[in-house]
Amino acid sequence: MTATRSVLAAQATDFPRWYQDVIAKAELADNGPVRGTMVIRPYAYGIWELLQAAMDRRIKAAGASNAYFPLLIPESYLQREAEHVEGFSPELAIVTHAGGKQLEEPAVIRPTSETIIGESMAKWIQSYRDLPVLLNQWGNAVRWELRPRLFLRTSEFLWQEGHTAHASADEARAYATRIAVEVYREVMENVLGIPVVIGRKTRRERFAGAVNTIALEAMMGDGKALQMGTSHELGQNFARAFDIGYLSAEGRRELAWTTSWGSTTRMLGGLIMVHGDDAGLRIPPMVAPTQVVVLAVKEETLTAAGQIADELRAAGVRVHLDNRTDQPFGRRAVNWELKGVPVRVEIGPRDLTAGVATVVRRLRASAKSAVQLSDVVTDVVAALAADQTHLHDEAQARHTARTTEVSSVSEAMEVATTGWASLPYDAIGESGEDQLATAALTVRCLQRPDGTLPTEDDERGLTAFVARSY
Amino acid sequence: MTATRSVLAAQATDFPRWYQDVIAKAELADNGPVRGTMVIRPYAYGIWELLQAAMDRRIKAAGASNAYFPLLIPESYLQREAEHVEGFSPELAIVTHAGGKQLEEPAVIRPTSETIIGESMAKWIQSYRDLPVLLNQWGNAVRWELRPRLFLRTSEFLWQEGHTAHASADEARAYATRIAVEVYREVMENVLGIPVVIGRKTRRERFAGAVNTIALEAMMGDGKALQMGTSHELGQNFARAFDIGYLSAEGRRELAWTTSWGSTTRMLGGLIMVHGDDAGLRIPPMVAPTQVVVLAVKEETLTAAGQIADELRAAGVRVHLDNRTDQPFGRRAVNWELKGVPVRVEIGPRDLTAGVATVVRRLRASAKSAVQLSDVVTDVVAALAADQTHLHDEAQARHTARTTEVSSVSEAMEVATTGWASLPYDAIGESGEDQLATAALTVRCLQRPDGTLPTEDDERGLTAFVARSY
Repeated sequence: MTATRSVLAAQATDFPRWYQDVIAKAELADNGPVRGTMVIRPYAYGIWELLQAAMDRRIKAAGASNAYFPLLIPESYLQREAEHVEGFSPELAIVTHAGGKQLEEPAVIRPTSETIIGESMAKWIQSYRDLPVLLNQWGNAVRWELRPRLFLRTSEFLWQEGHTAHASADEARAYATRIAVEVYREVMENVLGIPVVIGRKTRRERFAGAVNTIALEAMMGDGKALQMGTSHELGQNFARAFDIGYLSAEGRRELAWTTSWGSTTRMLGGLIMVHGDDAGLRIPPMVAPTQVVVLAVKEETLTAAGQIADELRAAGVRVHLDNRTDQPFGRRAVNWELKGVPVRVEIGPRDLTAGVATVVRRLRASAKSAVQLSDVVTDVVAALAADQTHLHDEAQARHTARTTEVSSVSEAMEVATTGWASLPYDAIGESGEDQLATAALTVRCLQRPDGTLPTEDDERGLTAFVARSY
Repeated sequence: MTATRSVLAAQATDFPRWYQDVIAKAELADNGPVRGTMVIRPYAYGIWELLQAAMDRRIKAAGASNAYFPLLIPESYLQREAEHVEGFSPELAIVTHAGGKQLEEPAVIRPTSETIIGESMAKWIQSYRDLPVLLNQWGNAVRWELRPRLFLRTSEFLWQEGHTAHASADEARAYATRIAVEVYREVMENVLGIPVVIGRKTRRERFAGAVNTIALEAMMGDGKALQMGTSHELGQNFARAFDIGYLSAEGRRELAWTTSWGSTTRMLGGLIMVHGDDAGLRIPPMVAPTQVVVLAVKEETLTAAGQIADELRAAGVRVHLDNRTDQPFGRRAVNWELKGVPVRVEIGPRDLTAGVATVVRRLRASAKSAVQLSDVVTDVVAALAADQTHLHDEAQARHTARTTEVSSVSEAMEVATTGWASLPYDAIGESGEDQLATAALTVRCLQRPDGTLPTEDDERGLTAFVARSY
């Protein structure tokens, strides 16, 4: 019953190739026919649905309501905010013809929706009583990619984008922070099992049009960084451009303060690169479309396998019964390993005679144990809970081991070939950022020494995390 | 406590105006800035989310898995199926520039995804063992509208589109039928409370590229018909165009048989027009984002109102507590009536003294009753269940009353000014369809006399339903 290794490149040898291989072999995604677009296959979409549900619950708990704004935005809208249009122009996809005619004004496919939502907010908000407005949207967006990479950088991606308007700068800042800490970090760490560092972006790295970008950065299996989500304070930039104003309690006309925040299908790329190993994916139980696969090894164990699957299902576990006893067992086992299903319950004739099932835990190097049939449900339910934590802890251990404290830009450049460097931002500054860029390194984010978020661009004594990034 | 009437046009006087008014006043949707696009506001989107969840559960129960295919399709893909491109060309939105350059091949924004999904199916399907492939996608689509109307005809709409491939024509037909009957009808009748007629489209009305379109048609409050969803047998048309083939058990190369089926945000338009009345919306409890609003009439009843809201919430009811006692009670009550919240629980000082609450049932002409405080939860839960059915039965009664059996095209043209005509299709034929078209009437669909679905275009003895349509 030893599973022969699958045909993936080894992570240590060629991580990018391993990433491509696992996406193809586990049937996660394909390239679409238009450059940079992506087909998300059912198995990966199943993970996305669970992730989406977990995120959506927390977004609603933070008081936001879902709504939907048009895909197509008049080109002139983007031009109303100078930095915004400058940032996004090179990535826009433009509709020039529709309904058999050339359009009077070209429309862009939303790269993000600050502008079109700003227009609606301006209409909906009259008085301070209408504030805050807390909106979220699930949908697609298009940003043209010259070097696309499945999940990580695709010309079209799926995401949620939140957009809020508030009566004060403090309230806007508090809400943008709340989303980063209570929604994004919660989901990333406790649902995806991915430890993240939350920090402030430097001026050069922030969102086009924001006064502050809070980023959540995670370390991948190869030591590089992936930006998993961002939450922006937009100041009054978009409020000014779209005239989002309100009458204060004192009867004065004031401009609102807005925020925006997004997380995308890129998180699936993070999930693959943080938890995967040489045998394939390892999916955290909370987002595993199949948490347990029950394998009937031979035809004579089909009934027993079916019973166990039913019992697990009754206990609320997402179960798949693999009853393809006409196909080689080894190949089936390797395939489930590749797909990263957290637990396999294998039932062979000898197991049955002994009154046991073989429980294999993918997330613990496929460790096997013989479990009494009557204990399988309890054992599996406990394994799922424990392995959710285990995956996170493994990732956290790597993150800690591969983050090195240094004190100069040149040292940072050395350690960042295999991991992250942390060093005083005062030792970098904007000129140091230029120097890092020559080695394809960036300051991923800035934190105060106690791990909290800086509130000003010019705060001194901050810690910078430097890494190569996806 | 009499709610003064809101400022909607009367349905009997100007139904289209009433429709626009209710969408604006109940804050359901706005026009987007690009022609024909729509902003779906949180209240309407909340209905959509519940409808979507109900539909998604049933789609999954029918064996299909969700996946996601690109928004952008190479223009040449559509040209591979002659009828398909002819049907959709006039409605396409075309991206000619992206990433700062003119594209070598223009891309269309998907009007529907048969072509791009066909391309993937061809890649994924090798042998009969891979069949059936049962896919569904939730997303947006764009079909340019010259005379847009919120929810009913918008240049961009949200929908699910299902796409399947099968080994035989019979299996494909059975699946397309199953979706219409077990998924769409179920959701429309039992969740939205909208009675539908399921029938076969005539040749001139069917989907571009299909060999058969099964439609679900509903009667609106003004007697017109709305197509609520369709399920298509595509024969081997797309399989041929995209080479969706498989090796049969006998080792022969065969073409697959495909289906597609869709239902859109248009259903929300149906919901408004079927159940609404002169006071506003009436939302079926199953899709009501707020099923019960508890109104504290005065400040001194806030605590009691809060308690009742908590009790209802604990009983699994979606509750909103309206504690705006600084605003006129009458205006608040009218607003909830306008928004169609199924049940209001009003708690005023006199109610409290008497140990009762006033329960107002929106779906029964806002009938009021005094209910002992200890009985409110039981009473409200029962009311929600009963009113779900009540709404359906009311709509069914109208549908029956306003459908008239006739025997000729000229009679059909007469009755179809205020309702539907049913008559033998043999008395219409293709020439009769031309004649009906001169009066903006169409054959909505065809049924056998026993209500079942015809399987051939040339079947005799069929009943045609004729109506004006949205």
